[in-house]
This record gives sequence, C-alpha cells and structure tokens, in this order.
Amino acid sequence: MKRYLPFVAYAALCAAFPLLAQEAEIYPAPSEIVAAAKADEWVAIKSSDLMIMDLAPDSTGKPRRVVIQLMPAPFSQGWVGNIRKLAAARWWDGTSINRVQDNYVAQWGDATEKKALPEGLAMVPESDYVTVLQPASVKEANWGRRDSYVDAATIIYKGWPIGLNQDKTAAPVHCYAMVGVGRNLSPDTGSGAELYTVIGHAPRHLDRNIALVGRVIEGIEHISSLPRGTGALGFYEKEEDRVPILSVRLGNEVPDAPTFEYLNTDSASFAAYADARANRRDPFFNVPAGGADICNIPVPIRRQAK
Amino acid sequence: MKRYLPFVAYAALCAAFPLLAQEAEIYPAPSEIVAAAKADEWVAIKSSDLMIMDLAPDSTGKPRRVVIQLMPAPFSQGWVGNIRKLAAARWWDGTSINRVQDNYVAQWGDATEKKALPEGLAMVPESDYVTVLQPASVKEANWGRRDSYVDAATIIYKGWPIGLNQDKTAAPVHCYAMVGVGRNLSPDTGSGAELYTVIGHAPRHLDRNIALVGRVIEGIEHISSLPRGTGALGFYEKEEDRVPILSVRLGNEVPDAPTFEYLNTDSASFAAYADARANRRDPFFNVPAGGADICNIPVPIRRQAK
Repeated sequence: MKRYLPFVAYAALCAAFPLLAQEAEIYPAPSEIVAAAKADEWVAIKSSDLMIMDLAPDSTGKPRRVVIQLMPAPFSQGWVGNIRKLAAARWWDGTSINRVQDNYVAQWGDATEKKALPEGLAMVPESDYVTVLQPASVKEANWGRRDSYVDAATIIYKGWPIGLNQDKTAAPVHCYAMVGVGRNLSPDTGSGAELYTVIGHAPRHLDRNIALVGRVIEGIEHISSLPRGTGALGFYEKEEDRVPILSVRLGNEVPDAPTFEYLNTDSASFAAYADARANRRDPFFNVPAGGADICNIPVPIRRQAK
Repeated sequence: MKRYLPFVAYAALCAAFPLLAQEAEIYPAPSEIVAAAKADEWVAIKSSDLMIMDLAPDSTGKPRRVVIQLMPAPFSQGWVGNIRKLAAARWWDGTSINRVQDNYVAQWGDATEKKALPEGLAMVPESDYVTVLQPASVKEANWGRRDSYVDAATIIYKGWPIGLNQDKTAAPVHCYAMVGVGRNLSPDTGSGAELYTVIGHAPRHLDRNIALVGRVIEGIEHISSLPRGTGALGFYEKEEDRVPILSVRLGNEVPDAPTFEYLNTDSASFAAYADARANRRDPFFNVPAGGADICNIPVPIRRQAK
C-alpha cells in the first residue's frame, strides 16, 4: 500500500485493514455512494448538448480531446445558441488556446482577432447573465447553502451549480471546469466565440458578470496542465506557444464520440453523496467538516456503458 | 487592446477609455491597492523561513525553482521542525514529484518508500492539527467571515488563512498553493518527508485532518502545469514520468535566493484590498459579489526590491 497519502484507495485499505471495511460500510466514501447509485438515478446527456474539442496532439503524439457539456435552458441560452452556430460553421477549427493563467482561467478563440464571425449570431443583453427562477422550481433542488457570494442560497439545480439571490434571480456558478464567454467591457457581453474554462479556485466574483455556458466533463487535464502564459493575464507571448485547436463539433456530429450521463441531482444517491462530501467519515478522516461549498460538491458525470 | 477578456489590464484600459480612468481612481482594482501600499505596510519574510526546491529543468532546459514559505508559530510547529531537519539533511535531494491529481494536489517525496529518515524527527500528535488561539489574538485579525467549514469564522491572521472553531481551536486552511504533510491512516500524522501542495479548488475537507506547514509563494506554475498522473489518485505510473527534485534548501543556505515580503494583514491597505476582492467595482465588473471566501483573498506576497 502506498504510504503517506492525503487520500487512500478504498480497496487497498480494506485489504490491509479488514476491520475498517466494516466501518466503511457504515460510512462509505462519496465515490462509493456514486458507484452504488441505481441505474435509474442517472440521466443521459444528449449528444447534441456536447461539444467535442480536439486539440493538436501533445509532444509525444498523444491525442487531446476535451468534452464540454452545454448548459440547458433556462440559463444563458442566447450565448449557447451562438455557440451551436459557431460549432456548425466550424469556426473554431484552426484557432487556438491563447491564454493560460495559473489558478484562474484558460481561454481559447481567434488569436488574430480578425476572423469573421458567422452571420446570424445574437447580441445577448446583460440582463441574460441572470434568469428568474420560480420558487416552485427551486424547491426541487435537494442541496442548498448560503455562502459569501449570494444573498439567498447556492443550489444544485437540475445538475448544475446555481446561485440564487433574494430578488429571485439565479445565475450559474464559476466552479472548476465551468466554461464561460470572454467579453470586452460592458455593455459588450461576448458572442461566444471567445471561451474560457476555470482551472483554479472558483473565481466566484465573475458570477453574474460573465455568461457561463457549460462545463468540461472530460479532458480538463489537457487544458489545466498546459504551460502558463508569461504575458499579461497569462497570454502566451509567442505564436508557437499557442495550442492549436484542430476541430470543435457538437457531439452528434462526431461518429465515435462517447456518451455521458450525470447523477440526477434530485435523487436519493445524490443527496447521500452531497452529505458525505460535506461530512467525510470514511477511514482517512478524523474530523468531518460539517459543510461544504458548492464547488466542492461536483455533480458526478461518467461515460455511459456501451 | 486584447478583446474579449474576462479581465482587462488597467493600463491598456485607461489608454483606450480615458473616462474610465476616473472611475478606476474611485474604485481601484485589488492589484492597484496592493501596488499603492506604503513601504511600512510590508513585512519581510525571514530567509530561514523559506524553503527553496529546485526541480530538474523542463524539457527545454529551463530551470524550475519553487519557493515555499514555512508556517510560523503557533501552527504545526512539530512538523515544521521536522521539515527543517529534513532540509538540513538534504533528504529530498534525489527524490521526486510522484503524484499530480487534477483539481486536487501534487505530492513529492521518496517514491521508493525505502529512504531512511534522518534521526531526531518528532512524532507529532494528532492534537497538533489544531492550535488554541486566545480571543485577544483573534481580535487582531482585520478580516473574518463565517463559512461552511468552521462553526466560528475564517480569519486572515498574521498573514495566514485560518479557520476558527467555537471551541477556540484554530487550524490553517487548505487554499490553493498551501503545502501539507502527507500521512497514512490515523493515528499516523506524517513526518513531513512526504509533502503536497493544493493545485485546484480549495479541498477544505482536509482542514483539521492533515497538518499544513506552509505555502508556495513563487513557482507554483512549475507544479500545477505538470502532466496529471494516470494511476490511482494521480500517481505517475512510470518511473520516468516522475519529476526529479535536485535539491531542497532553507532560504538562508542558498546564496542567490531572492527575499520576499507580505502585505501586513493588519494594515489599512490589506483591509482595503480584502474589501475590493469581495466587492469588485473596477471597470470590468457590473455586479459586486458582496463577499468572498477566504481562499479568494490570497495574501499579497512579492519579491523585495534589492
């Protein structure tokens, strides 16, 4: 068994310490709760809601595929619509990742800033950074907490981390791997052509100030492990440092694309998982925290069995 | 000017939008508040409290130096004492970074698990994960907030993020770049030979469960941008994937080591900076959050002018 781990693999543990297996049955780790969830607690993600971004292979020739899940209604649909059009127009093919700022974001799009956008993109108003959620919808969420960034609660709503305000407005939350729309100064809201993903501690001050349109559900490591840019804001200073994007397609346009499902966030297993994330009692832990912030309760997502 | 940024450089902004310069004078960005702090608001960090870790150069031959600031009393001093002894014994020379788990931690030490430890290391009890802080000391902190992980408050105390509990115990907080001591199952508390640093969203469930001993103050990008390990828990599966550590020395043993200072967290400039981090009103922002979590208020640290 590996020694000195901040985290210990369950199987190795039980083999080494048979008595702990019993305790672990009483207090399973979050990953074990997810593994034990029933088949009908998982929700399939439509392939048309996926965006597959293939980067150029790495220096050893290994392919680098990043899979993004686009946000469903009622959030950010103006930008999501634009992104579907940009993917259909193959607009990102030949663009690049141009900025990687440590503990913040990585950003991609057209480094030349001269590539013409396809026709028919919407100009989305700033009012669409938030959505009005009816109290009845909010009651469906089975996890909610107050935190420093909202005056009502953060909830996990239909599979997504959402911040709620007293005025009934709601906005997606900038957790790790969430994908947002770069923009210029207000009143610009961005078209969706310039995108970024979070690669550090949740930059929640961006909530309600920028549109979030999805999250990376596979392959984030191909982005988060890129060299940091040495220019201002983490931009790459030399053209050859940029990471080429070979293609971006919606999932239904990619014949060999895997399919995914997420754990229904209204399910009993999700409630147990969220509780276990906030109160770690599996064998490694001495003191359960008694709580967790919304970005420490990532929604479980996995490939569907073929 | 770069378009579509989630964040815009101040100088470029003022050049392009002269009117905004006036607004920015009223609502400076956090970085501007730090830049304007008075010389006597900065506190020198003793070079003997620094640990300089030189990794093998990267694939292009570029040196990779990581600077860690060790925690001062009254926190985790048993482990910090061990770490000083390990550095003095040059114990880490020839060891490696063996684990890089995305959005979690990177860990280094002896991959063979066979290297003998120097004599005289302390066995530190679990009770030392926390420290009792007197209320008088706590009052000195000029920033404090309740959050999901503590039942009293998180404070920034003498330059460090600290969680306070109702029972008057206090423990350092697992923010990005904090450095902790890997351990096996309780009652093992780790010697300090196996260390890790946080490279993702703050894993606060580890607070009070593992000793924190310092933070990376320069060069975290040499660790956070490493390829993720493909084994369980992000361990590298092949020996050649490990990142060699050439040497680890205390700062006072390295002739050319830079010196650093941090912004006094009891200063007026720190209070203004923390407030601005929680209420972004600089030109890019439309809606100030009204709050921030402790890990989104990193203590400003910089190289001292020579």
